This record gives sequence, structure tokens and C-alpha cells, in this order.
Amino acid sequence: MIKTVCFNKRENCLELIDQTALPVRETIVKCYSETDVAEAIKTMVVRGSTAIGITAGYGIYLGLQKATEQNFKSTLNNVCDLIAGVRPTSVNLFCTIHRVKEAVSSCTSAKEAVERALSEADKIFEEDLAMCRAIGVFGQEVMEDGTAWLTHCNAGALATSGYGTALGIFRTAKEAGKNVKIFVNETRPLLQGARLTAWELQKEGFDVTVIADNTAGSLIREGKINGVVVGADCVTSKGFVVNKVGTYPLAVLCKYNGIPFYVAVPATAFDMSLKYDDEIVIEQSDSKEMCFFNGVQVIPEGVNVYNPAFDITPPELITGIITDKGIIEPIYGENIPVVLGLEKED
Amino acid sequence: MIKTVCFNKRENCLELIDQTALPVRETIVKCYSETDVAEAIKTMVVRGSTAIGITAGYGIYLGLQKATEQNFKSTLNNVCDLIAGVRPTSVNLFCTIHRVKEAVSSCTSAKEAVERALSEADKIFEEDLAMCRAIGVFGQEVMEDGTAWLTHCNAGALATSGYGTALGIFRTAKEAGKNVKIFVNETRPLLQGARLTAWELQKEGFDVTVIADNTAGSLIREGKINGVVVGADCVTSKGFVVNKVGTYPLAVLCKYNGIPFYVAVPATAFDMSLKYDDEIVIEQSDSKEMCFFNGVQVIPEGVNVYNPAFDITPPELITGIITDKGIIEPIYGENIPVVLGLEKED
Repeated sequence: MIKTVCFNKRENCLELIDQTALPVRETIVKCYSETDVAEAIKTMVVRGSTAIGITAGYGIYLGLQKATEQNFKSTLNNVCDLIAGVRPTSVNLFCTIHRVKEAVSSCTSAKEAVERALSEADKIFEEDLAMCRAIGVFGQEVMEDGTAWLTHCNAGALATSGYGTALGIFRTAKEAGKNVKIFVNETRPLLQGARLTAWELQKEGFDVTVIADNTAGSLIREGKINGVVVGADCVTSKGFVVNKVGTYPLAVLCKYNGIPFYVAVPATAFDMSLKYDDEIVIEQSDSKEMCFFNGVQVIPEGVNVYNPAFDITPPELITGIITDKGIIEPIYGENIPVVLGLEKED
Repeated sequence: MIKTVCFNKRENCLELIDQTALPVRETIVKCYSETDVAEAIKTMVVRGSTAIGITAGYGIYLGLQKATEQNFKSTLNNVCDLIAGVRPTSVNLFCTIHRVKEAVSSCTSAKEAVERALSEADKIFEEDLAMCRAIGVFGQEVMEDGTAWLTHCNAGALATSGYGTALGIFRTAKEAGKNVKIFVNETRPLLQGARLTAWELQKEGFDVTVIADNTAGSLIREGKINGVVVGADCVTSKGFVVNKVGTYPLAVLCKYNGIPFYVAVPATAFDMSLKYDDEIVIEQSDSKEMCFFNGVQVIPEGVNVYNPAFDITPPELITGIITDKGIIEPIYGENIPVVLGLEKED
């Protein structure tokens, strides 16, 4: 397994693969304190909402260790504030903080608090791994031996506990003895596909080919791709999918050419408080991501740049949403709450 | 006008905008000999098939100047061989060589040959400019005031005599008093949109915004783009369009979202010897274009890369082909030969 976020019990430290050094070097960053963890999140040694959430859990544990009987409750708050402050928009990070605080709330000693924090961090890690494996088990059913699939960005080991959502399906298919060829969009502007997805798939011996995002269309038209599978940052109750910009055009290309388009996400990625696309606010990324490439200017000074981080894919373009609770297919009516085991919508 | 290829009669030299220095610096390279011209083509100071063809004409003229009465015919051949050798796959370059050789063939003196070569080079330049302007006149009819258009790669002044095909339409629309907002795909892997199209449109005061190729889809879905117009390297007799990779997905996005998709080319870009897409051989570009960015590795060593230079857009996705002879719309039956003024196909 790819050791994206790995707690080293012997050395009592958190080990992270330094994603800023990929794909050229595989380096492990060891975090011994909450400040090490905060720094790692800040400098993007670890990225991907889920992986950040898992990392934060161990960061709180590491920070609590220095607490005394007198100050362990205030230490908990301080450590959580420190970690929350480095990525104030990460939903998973806040979810972790909420869970660890809850787990520790009834503790009556510093020792107990430290133990509970570690156990909750482990639970968050294990739960993600189990969800990813469950997605893989359901998802691999749609992948026949000898087929070719395209993915976008990095919905992989490096964004999660080490197995991945969309890429986890490739792993489970391989474990089931299926040979699957994988094409990866390089994923401009930050090249997560080229740098991260290609790296983790190559490391595990997959047949992987990187293409420019522009090339996906002609490959699909030529029948060289049997289906597309991507991850998602969020799915609404009506099945609108928010994912890395470039996802929507892939879904349109699949629909036009009659091949399946799947989204792989844990059930926890559904935001049932949102229904339609017009309720979703799309974050704008820094235009520097586009204007400069490793310090070299590629867009003339003063030209406008529009750089949304995500796009929205409507449910009518999605063949199915592969979750850890089962595959939602097709995306309408009662299918989402039924598969997720939720109350019926009003 | 953008002086992509500009013969300076006073200094008797050819001036080229150094496109390798864009978009950071605007530098003029002066060519005084055929070797200067060959070097400029080789090092991509000038790029774009049409601009190379025009440049070659002046290169032959400059090379012929040193010829004597005894050797002007062999000099012509040597100069043409030198220039042909630097870009042996450029159709426009060979077309220019053919035309200048034809023009000079009946000459009986070196002086006459030199004069005829210059006059033919000027003619090639002027004809291209007239074709681009004619495309602009027909094309601007489809652009309403206040609309927003998207283009891909560089079908502009920098690829032609200085006016452009797709971008020439924006110029004519502006000359006609229309305000048009332009979105430009950065156009991976070589970023011609970001580096060149953005530069030439900004220089002439257009409202221009660069986007990642991945962003075109969501902009179209959100209704922020009224239509797409691109150039083409080649069009078959049945209307299959060969253009920079990334063109086909734009055409699919337009079709799916019900907005027009136009191709702008001179009539000379039609290859009536080709009918269907399966007769077209798509050139593969160097994988280094994808693996490295200014020397920095972005794809892991040893991973496969698939990097076709072009893709094919079938006629059913194209609203119209805007030529210097008129607009071909829709693309079927007799429309192509009728608009181009060609013999009926059998």
C-alpha cells in the first residue's frame, strides 16, 4: 500500500510522503509534534481533503502528549486551533477536529485524553481505508478484464489513507486478476494527474499512460477508452457532482460517444443540504497557477485569467456513482437516499 | 497590424517577431540571408504553417541575391534545398518553393530572377493577407456585438501574414464596431493560446481572458460563451477538420450545449484528395513536450506518454466553415465544392 499518511508507533511519529517532491523523489517527512503536522499541511507535503483530515487527527494526538493534568483541555483547544488555522476551508479537517474533541470530551485525565485522541485518529484512518476498499469492491464489478479507463486529477492513495476512491477501484480490479489499462489526464493547472496519479499507479505496476487533457476527446472518439472514472469533492442530494475542473467535459465526451462515466466517492461526500448546481459556490484558484510555470511566465502580464478549481457535472451525464454503500445507478429519484440508507427526501 | 513576417525594403532584410521570446519580450529578428531565414524557421522564431511558407519566399529571394549570371539556377536549387531541409513536413513551405521556382523558371538573367523571386514572395504574403481579410469579412457576420467567443491554439496574426484566420474574424468584427469578449484556451502542451494568442489580442486592445483547457466546459455549460471559432491545418472534401488536439472536445461541448462551433480556414487548406477521417495520419509530437516544463520533470520517469499533435472533428459537429470564398454551412453534400467554386465531386 502507498503510505500517504502512516503513523509509526515505534518512533511515535507521523510519516507522510512528501507530495511536493513527487514525481521526481519519494521522500518521507516525519512529524513529531502538532507544529510539524501543521507545517506539513501548510506546505502541501500532504494534500487532498481526506488525507489532510486523517493527518490532522494524528496532529492533535501529537500535540496533546505534552499536556499536563491541569491544562489538557486547553491544550486540546490550542492544538486544534493551530491545525484548523492552516487550512480553514477544509471540511475533512474540521470534521476530524470535531470527532477528536468529542472523543476526548469525557476524559478525566491527560493520559486518557492522549489515548483517546490516538484511538480516534486511528479510527478515522481505518474508516477511510475501509470505505475506499468497499468502493473498490463495488466499483471493480463495472471493469471488465482487458478494458481501458481514463481518470482525471488524483482520486488516489495520495489523496486518502493510501488506497484511493477512483484509483482504489483499479487496485481492487487488479487484486481480482483483471488487467486494466489506465489513461490519466495530466490535469492542468496543477498537474495532479501527471505528477501524482501516474506516480502511484506506476509504483504498483499498472499500465499507465499520461495524456494532455486535450487528448481525452480524440482517444474516446477513436474507441480507445471503455469508460471514465473520477473522484469527487462533493455530491448534492440530486446527484450534481463537484470535482476538479475538467470533469464535466469528460462526462459530455462520454455521453456523446456512448461510454460509461462513473464517479467514485464515499457516502460521506454527499452533502444532502444541497440539491441543485446553482446552490454550489465554485472556489477560484490563484491565477498564478496559470500565469507561471516553475517561475517562467507563460501568459502576458496584465491579461485576464479565469481559474476555477472545480466544475459541476449534472446527474444526467453520470452512469453511476460508486460509493462504499453500493452503486447509485441511474442517478434519479429515490436512488441516492435508498443506496446510501438515508431517510426519504421530502 | 502585427508584423509577424515583414520585409524591410529599406534595409533589404526580413524582419520576424521572435515567437520564442513571447509573451515576455517582443523582439525583432532580422534576416539578411537564406541561412538566417533557415535558422529562424529551425529555431521556431517563426512558427505556424502559413507564416513559415511566407517566410520561406523571402528566404529564397535573399539567397538568390548573391547568384551570378552563371549560377543563378543552381543557386536557386541550393537555396530551396537548404530551406526545405529545416522543415521537411511543412506543406506551405513546399508550396512556396514550388511557386517561386515556377516564377523564376523562365528568367534569363540573375537580376530578373532576383526581382521575380521578391515579387513572388510579396504575392504570397499579399494573397494570404487578402484571404485572411476575406475570412474576417464573412466571419464577422456570425459575431453579434456584446457576445463572448472561445478560441483554441493560435490561428492568428502570429501564424500567418499578420491578420490571422480565426483571430482575423475578431479583428474584422472589431473594425466593424463590435465589442467581442474573447476566451482563450491555454492549449497544452505547448501553450500557444496562453503565450501567443493572448499576446497578440492584448496588444490590439481586445478583452481577452486565458483559461485552462479544462475550464472551457464549465464556461460553456454556464452560458458564458456564445460560440467557438478555431483555425484548422487541413479540411477533407467531406468536411473532417484536422486541428490542434483539443479542438474535437470543444466541438462536442458546443453541440451538447447548443452553441455554434465554427472553423476558419482559407480555401487552400482543403485537401480534396482526402475524404474521411480514417485517411488522415495524425502526427505524434515528442513526449518531452509533456514530461518536462522548462527543464522540470512533471511526469515520473518511465511512464508512457501519448501526445498526438492534432485531432479530427467530424462535419456533423461543425456549424460552419468560414473561408475566404464564403461560409460553408451546413457541412454536407455539395456545399463544400459549391462555396469553394470547385468542380462537383463524383
